Amino acid sequence: MPEGPTLAQLGEGELIRRLGAFAPPGQFDDDAALLGAALLGGRPAGDPPLVLNTDVLVEDVHFSAATMGAADVGWRAAAANLSDLAAMGCRGAVGLTVALVAPGHTPWAWVEGAYAGMAELLGSHGGVLLGGDCSGGRQRLLAVTALGRLPAGGGPIRRGDGRPGDVLVSTGAHGISRLGLAVLRGEALPDLPAAGRERAIRAHRRPVPRFDAVAALGASRPAALDWRVAGCDSSDGLATAASCLAVASRCTALLSRSDLPLAAELAGQAQAEDWCLWGGEDFELVLALEPAWAEALVEQLEGARWIGRLVEPQPWGPLGWTEGGGPIASPTAAFRHFG
Amino acid sequence: MPEGPTLAQLGEGELIRRLGAFAPPGQFDDDAALLGAALLGGRPAGDPPLVLNTDVLVEDVHFSAATMGAADVGWRAAAANLSDLAAMGCRGAVGLTVALVAPGHTPWAWVEGAYAGMAELLGSHGGVLLGGDCSGGRQRLLAVTALGRLPAGGGPIRRGDGRPGDVLVSTGAHGISRLGLAVLRGEALPDLPAAGRERAIRAHRRPVPRFDAVAALGASRPAALDWRVAGCDSSDGLATAASCLAVASRCTALLSRSDLPLAAELAGQAQAEDWCLWGGEDFELVLALEPAWAEALVEQLEGARWIGRLVEPQPWGPLGWTEGGGPIASPTAAFRHFG
Repeated sequence: MPEGPTLAQLGEGELIRRLGAFAPPGQFDDDAALLGAALLGGRPAGDPPLVLNTDVLVEDVHFSAATMGAADVGWRAAAANLSDLAAMGCRGAVGLTVALVAPGHTPWAWVEGAYAGMAELLGSHGGVLLGGDCSGGRQRLLAVTALGRLPAGGGPIRRGDGRPGDVLVSTGAHGISRLGLAVLRGEALPDLPAAGRERAIRAHRRPVPRFDAVAALGASRPAALDWRVAGCDSSDGLATAASCLAVASRCTALLSRSDLPLAAELAGQAQAEDWCLWGGEDFELVLALEPAWAEALVEQLEGARWIGRLVEPQPWGPLGWTEGGGPIASPTAAFRHFG
Repeated sequence: MPEGPTLAQLGEGELIRRLGAFAPPGQFDDDAALLGAALLGGRPAGDPPLVLNTDVLVEDVHFSAATMGAADVGWRAAAANLSDLAAMGCRGAVGLTVALVAPGHTPWAWVEGAYAGMAELLGSHGGVLLGGDCSGGRQRLLAVTALGRLPAGGGPIRRGDGRPGDVLVSTGAHGISRLGLAVLRGEALPDLPAAGRERAIRAHRRPVPRFDAVAALGASRPAALDWRVAGCDSSDGLATAASCLAVASRCTALLSRSDLPLAAELAGQAQAEDWCLWGGEDFELVLALEPAWAEALVEQLEGARWIGRLVEPQPWGPLGWTEGGGPIASPTAAFRHFG
């Protein structure tokens, strides 16, 4: 009997689109769920909305023992979730719950290390362990849900709030996490000095949620401008982030090739541009802002830079180069969750 | 090199105790996490607290294709989470997030069925799908996180709020879910009529979170009594629930053998008492209340019944029989998550 498509045949994007049909309209549009007064019923309208986000990290899909210790896995699981809160406009987390699944033969020492890594991230970036569940299973995984709240003085950051004319800002360099993975896999990387290798490994294992960038965003808002910021995090890559913003905002994103936020450690590497655009897991924020606000933010936040702009939607697609126009080609081997 | 104990060697109880050390003191004491004003920072103190709960359902651990269809799996995953919200005193859910993990060869039809089952439960008991994540993995599983809030007129239900002299009340009969599992596994069940088989199967596949019982609890509170209710849900079995309440409240729970809340369908089955006490997954609430409140609740809520009381802690343990005293023996083959 024909059963229709499998998840691998659908692919992650189409799967998420179909799952979104079980949620209220628009609920799946952003990095995380915004819980406004309407969803929370009796809460006073002036109370800052809550933000809820779930991310799952699966062994041999998102991490492997070859490239990460237990504490790195825990740190990353928490950091990835908190990064999504930052991408929604939160400046910190209330805390998180963790569903741990692992085979019965898993050493307690591994679980202890993973929770210590989560606790280390929470200790330095805010939030506490709130609760969770655990179960046996064939494969180690952590499903983490983080709860945050918008600051009283700042609104939400939504993917669809961009407009033609907005400037695109990246809060930091890209490609270093992918470089770290290459180091850990023993790929050939000519002329990469030892200090650069160490920085790249650390960036891959210990990403940092950019709550500081959200605080700088709030502090740099020109008094004349209302709150309107589009953005998402770059966990799936800089190009994907810019493209998502553009699609949700019904614009095209033009990136300036000469202003690509290449990590300094990528200098001399053949894959530098590919890894900057498509490497993923840098967990920076990609924002679309009015030019005056963008300028103030770049001035105030070290490492933040101008990377392009939003324009009216172009017939050839949501993502292109400023120089010469035309789409940015995506690499052939994109990461697939359902392999 | 010795790595110390494995998760199977620790067992679930000791694992949760150790994981609780990574959370603030007391944070792991209840069925779910209570987020009061202190955790949420700037929220007004009078605002009803939020409740957050995570439960994971793993294929071949919590469910199997032999006993449940996809829609049953989704329903149960959502119901188990909402039951924990009810056990904390919520009368409904804001909604939930879902982390879906499944092999790439999983048919979309199975995932669609599971989400339809969740949507059906939410549609009839309140709450919406808020967000989530998905990933490939070796085994199907759903890690669900539910968010609820306490009603304005009702306080929290906590495991540790019981006192000697409290009456134990069960909101319904026990053992029918385990009976349903026996039917589905084809175990020998003499003299079980067809209608009873159907009710047992339905109880196993489609448990209901007892938000209605929490509403009745609030409505039946005698005006002279302040809010103080201890309780938890009976997902791990009636005896385990009573024992947890007793331990957290530093009491001993005495169950009355002649008042055991045996499901009517268990009549004539040799395992009736065992399944009532230890079968699990009935998702009723077990509450400890002042006698006057307990009496009013039993009068108001159909199916609720007096099952025993809390007394001063006894040297032989937290759980015993009213008749004759002495501990209730636990069966040899308890369910183990890390088997």
